[in-house]
Amino acid sequence: MKSLYIVLLITIAWTSSLPIQGQDSINIGTRHSLFSNILNEERMYWIYEPEKQPGKEEKDYPVLYLLDGDVFFHSVVGFTRFFASSRVSSLPPCVVVAVLNTDRTRDFTPTSSAARRDGSIQPGDTPKGGGMKAFYRFLTEELRPEIEKKVSANGRNFLVGHSYAGLFTLQVLLDYPESFDTFMAIDPSLWWDQGIYLKQAKREAHKKDFTGKQLYVAFATQQRPNVKLNQFSLADSLKVNIIPDMENQHLHVIYKKFPEEMHGTVALPGIFDGIKSLFRH
Amino acid sequence: MKSLYIVLLITIAWTSSLPIQGQDSINIGTRHSLFSNILNEERMYWIYEPEKQPGKEEKDYPVLYLLDGDVFFHSVVGFTRFFASSRVSSLPPCVVVAVLNTDRTRDFTPTSSAARRDGSIQPGDTPKGGGMKAFYRFLTEELRPEIEKKVSANGRNFLVGHSYAGLFTLQVLLDYPESFDTFMAIDPSLWWDQGIYLKQAKREAHKKDFTGKQLYVAFATQQRPNVKLNQFSLADSLKVNIIPDMENQHLHVIYKKFPEEMHGTVALPGIFDGIKSLFRH
Repeated sequence: MKSLYIVLLITIAWTSSLPIQGQDSINIGTRHSLFSNILNEERMYWIYEPEKQPGKEEKDYPVLYLLDGDVFFHSVVGFTRFFASSRVSSLPPCVVVAVLNTDRTRDFTPTSSAARRDGSIQPGDTPKGGGMKAFYRFLTEELRPEIEKKVSANGRNFLVGHSYAGLFTLQVLLDYPESFDTFMAIDPSLWWDQGIYLKQAKREAHKKDFTGKQLYVAFATQQRPNVKLNQFSLADSLKVNIIPDMENQHLHVIYKKFPEEMHGTVALPGIFDGIKSLFRH
Repeated sequence: MKSLYIVLLITIAWTSSLPIQGQDSINIGTRHSLFSNILNEERMYWIYEPEKQPGKEEKDYPVLYLLDGDVFFHSVVGFTRFFASSRVSSLPPCVVVAVLNTDRTRDFTPTSSAARRDGSIQPGDTPKGGGMKAFYRFLTEELRPEIEKKVSANGRNFLVGHSYAGLFTLQVLLDYPESFDTFMAIDPSLWWDQGIYLKQAKREAHKKDFTGKQLYVAFATQQRPNVKLNQFSLADSLKVNIIPDMENQHLHVIYKKFPEEMHGTVALPGIFDGIKSLFRH
């Protein structure tokens, strides 16, 4: 009897010491992790699910996969909520999955390369990168099935990435166009491996089928004193040499430049504008 | 003994049925409410507090008061987190307080008026609005002391509003420039009461002291077919007739136009750009 009292008291004390996720806390998602056999490591991810509408029947949602996810999660969840409730947009409520990094250079780049941004290779530069295909397989063969066990997904999938993750997004579109429906690449690192993406895309894009797919691609073009990048001409090359081939193969493309943004600030304005532009009423 | 077992079982069942705010949930804030004696009604607000940095001593934060708060809370929390951790920005981690509406027309407008956007008054139009001063008093005399009991505030305060709330923000700057440090007014409804703000500002701005204060003001200027607004010329009038008087009185002003945004989409790009522009490194 006495021990039962003690158990009861401990239970009550434990209960009341827990912060309760009640009316008073604003929750935007849940943290999860998954051991990837493909990558041979534990991977963290976060899920935002739209609130169920009381009285309405349960809905299925598109899933937006957000790379470099922890940095942009709060804002992008905010954007999807804003557009899903706005008359100016046709975006439905979306699940947002933030994929957290372990080694983003490895995961997002298609080749192993020692070349710098300007294309040069200096003595002592060692090759890095090249894990794009393995990370793509993790995303689609391991993570997506986990997500689809947890949320009401409707089978439409968006892929959103900035910088190296923007390059990854373009590479997935080129290599596996069937794998997602909407691709958003913000200031993609086209300089990787001396511009290898543009070369491969020139050879292959005109043979692919992009029917029903859409791409938003944006570049930060703010000029900065003492910074000389080849990103600007690579951005133009994508527009002039690659996008027409993709459009001929039925890709819907929106291409933008952001003259007031630089690489470090363009991700969020780009994602906002991408959603706005792709999902207009 | 039996009844004690039942209590224990109920306690355990109740405990396990509660969603626990543990490691697995991503929390961005807490919901609160306050009875306002000034407004004679219950008012809801949400608070986001930056995570404490383990190992670092506890810091004090500026407080960003976000009007129409529930619509923009997730995104603006995301923006402050992004800039506070970015090398391109001098923004420190901020507390964000979302103020929720009951009657935004009443609270955000400085006068009672029956005039429409184009300045006309049609038969049957009835006056509305005029509660700006009462809402200002609620914000600064009732809400702010509550906030400062709950968070580690450093005494610096930002006021952020869009549309009617943008007009409110400009009106607070004009009438009570000492009350906040940074003012962000996104597409403010300068047309209210046949442009009364511009008239009052022309009479009074040159007599105020704005030392140490800063204003970001932005307008959506996307042209739309079949929509004729006088907002564009009012935006120009603010720039030409009012802002120079304010700058002479030591206000730091950043004025922007967003030709790719309309009234319904400019709030978030405007707030992002406002933080970026005001808190540059």
